[in-house]
Amino acid sequence: MRNIFFTVGPTQTHPSLGKFLNDGLKKGIYSISHRGREFGEIFAHTVSSLKKLLNVPVDFHVFFIGSATEAMELIIENCVEDKSFHFVNGAFSKRFFQTAQELRKHPNARIAQSGEGFDFANVKIPKYSELVGFTQNETSTGVKIEMADIRALKKKNPDKLFAVDIVSATPYAPVDWGAVDCAFFSVQKGFGMPSGMGVVIANDRCIKKAEKLHGKGMNIGSFHSFPTLLKSARKNQTPETPNAMAIYILGRICDSYNKYGLDKIRKETEIRAGAMYDFFDKHSAYKPFVKNKKWRSKTVVVFNTPNGSAPVIKRLQDNGYIVGAGYGEFESHHIRIGNFPMHKISDVKKIIKLV
Amino acid sequence: MRNIFFTVGPTQTHPSLGKFLNDGLKKGIYSISHRGREFGEIFAHTVSSLKKLLNVPVDFHVFFIGSATEAMELIIENCVEDKSFHFVNGAFSKRFFQTAQELRKHPNARIAQSGEGFDFANVKIPKYSELVGFTQNETSTGVKIEMADIRALKKKNPDKLFAVDIVSATPYAPVDWGAVDCAFFSVQKGFGMPSGMGVVIANDRCIKKAEKLHGKGMNIGSFHSFPTLLKSARKNQTPETPNAMAIYILGRICDSYNKYGLDKIRKETEIRAGAMYDFFDKHSAYKPFVKNKKWRSKTVVVFNTPNGSAPVIKRLQDNGYIVGAGYGEFESHHIRIGNFPMHKISDVKKIIKLV
Repeated sequence: MRNIFFTVGPTQTHPSLGKFLNDGLKKGIYSISHRGREFGEIFAHTVSSLKKLLNVPVDFHVFFIGSATEAMELIIENCVEDKSFHFVNGAFSKRFFQTAQELRKHPNARIAQSGEGFDFANVKIPKYSELVGFTQNETSTGVKIEMADIRALKKKNPDKLFAVDIVSATPYAPVDWGAVDCAFFSVQKGFGMPSGMGVVIANDRCIKKAEKLHGKGMNIGSFHSFPTLLKSARKNQTPETPNAMAIYILGRICDSYNKYGLDKIRKETEIRAGAMYDFFDKHSAYKPFVKNKKWRSKTVVVFNTPNGSAPVIKRLQDNGYIVGAGYGEFESHHIRIGNFPMHKISDVKKIIKLV
Repeated sequence: MRNIFFTVGPTQTHPSLGKFLNDGLKKGIYSISHRGREFGEIFAHTVSSLKKLLNVPVDFHVFFIGSATEAMELIIENCVEDKSFHFVNGAFSKRFFQTAQELRKHPNARIAQSGEGFDFANVKIPKYSELVGFTQNETSTGVKIEMADIRALKKKNPDKLFAVDIVSATPYAPVDWGAVDCAFFSVQKGFGMPSGMGVVIANDRCIKKAEKLHGKGMNIGSFHSFPTLLKSARKNQTPETPNAMAIYILGRICDSYNKYGLDKIRKETEIRAGAMYDFFDKHSAYKPFVKNKKWRSKTVVVFNTPNGSAPVIKRLQDNGYIVGAGYGEFESHHIRIGNFPMHKISDVKKIIKLV
């Protein structure tokens, strides 16, 4: 029996991954020059297919890097001279904040309890903040932030750069590109790819800020600064020899999502999430970790297992379903279930029965 | 007809790449958690197989990052407070030097003409240099540096960190780990893999230097500093979600090289290189770009085409052989041929006939 991964990423891979990998091999894509015409066409196609899928305006740039973690470093180095502000409610939003500290900046943060979101109406972002960091979906606890809240905050803070971690939210959760200056994700979640690539989507305000910092003599990184990435991207290239395989596969998967239709993917995601939350809301022992329905992620469903998660994880595994344990301090008492386009409602129903 | 890539990297992939990619898919390696036991075993196996192949002492650490270009940034940020020294004789050694400049350090360089090596006996490295950068094989022009020269220089400069770019030299060219503090490569050359991963092999002196700089309040990077990489590597992990596929494939390819025998790979590399250099030395029009035999790379063979490289490249391509044009200013008058373990003497003989 082949396992089906309902983990939060890396997770179950796209059903056509094997075909796409082998197509690339047959076409010689893993051997071609990253400075040649053929690679340029693959690059341009992936950018175009991704922009179509995520409804990205033409004036945003798409950059391919190593991971979402690298994206955090890149964004802080290129867009923050001294002070960023972060909404922190779990391990990954905290990492964004800590990245700024590690890079010797002086970030501030609004911290929420684990499993809770933010009361944005009552948040005052310090005036001097250059960039505000959000995590659309906190993968460690399954809390989401609504784009409408980000938009409202942007109206009050139009001068600040808004950077959004969309790692486990995309492509399900929409991004309001009028309120967001840059967003980033990695490909091993909603795109069902092997891990090893991060994607940053950024507007010219981010590039200009990086150029300004560079002009001041600051270190904005070498090969992966926004200006160097942009200079290469304009030629449909990357500064370094890229993960051409991942760029190619991402394009194929975007094509398949575009063909299937994101609306349909969204509806199916909501049906699966709804089935899980309904079940756990009614369960006598296991309850959704996120109490407030407004904050419940549709793509990372987390529930409490007061008597320990290990036996439940084991029972699911014995039946071919791999789910995630809790993150960090919650390791032994949470179960996290990824809910991505590759997942099927029939399997969700079986998981619910087995829990 | 399937093309055979004799380019300098990305190049012809390992003949078992398709099998390895599909094995990984079947085993679920692209879905497993990068914090779990199974991934840890893959990580440990690849490190061990690579160390065996390259004869790396136990006290060196192996780190997986995005590219060799990233390795340059990582090494400069972590091992240079202000001044590095670089041997520059082509585009890639120059990039190492320029990376230090971009990171706001104040590097010095010894510059040789394109196609020439260095007269190391007469080089004085400035006393204040913290790190000396070498490029074992200058991929842009096909000039090599002998390990014996590096060793002799290390004897005179035992206090300085020696960092060696072994990108297009490894696994053919040996590394004297007694003279080298860190070395780095990318997987799309001698390992015949798709691009997208760099590997750094570093000793404790590099880690200690990074810790010292960090202690002084300097920015040594966030997730990919030597100390964070080491902290994760001790658990057979990476700080970020890694390119697990590439780590797995690299292990399989190291296994296959270890089984075949590096001595045999080396002998075959030399036979192929010898055949090409002999031919071009005797050719009436095309001559090896590197005149001095001591400096001629065995893995990147470059020859002059005084009347332009395009017709020769076209003729080879029409016969299924893809070779590289010259680099940068030499684009239209050089041809570069990669000579890696995947390549066959029978094809080299055909290329010679077709040129």
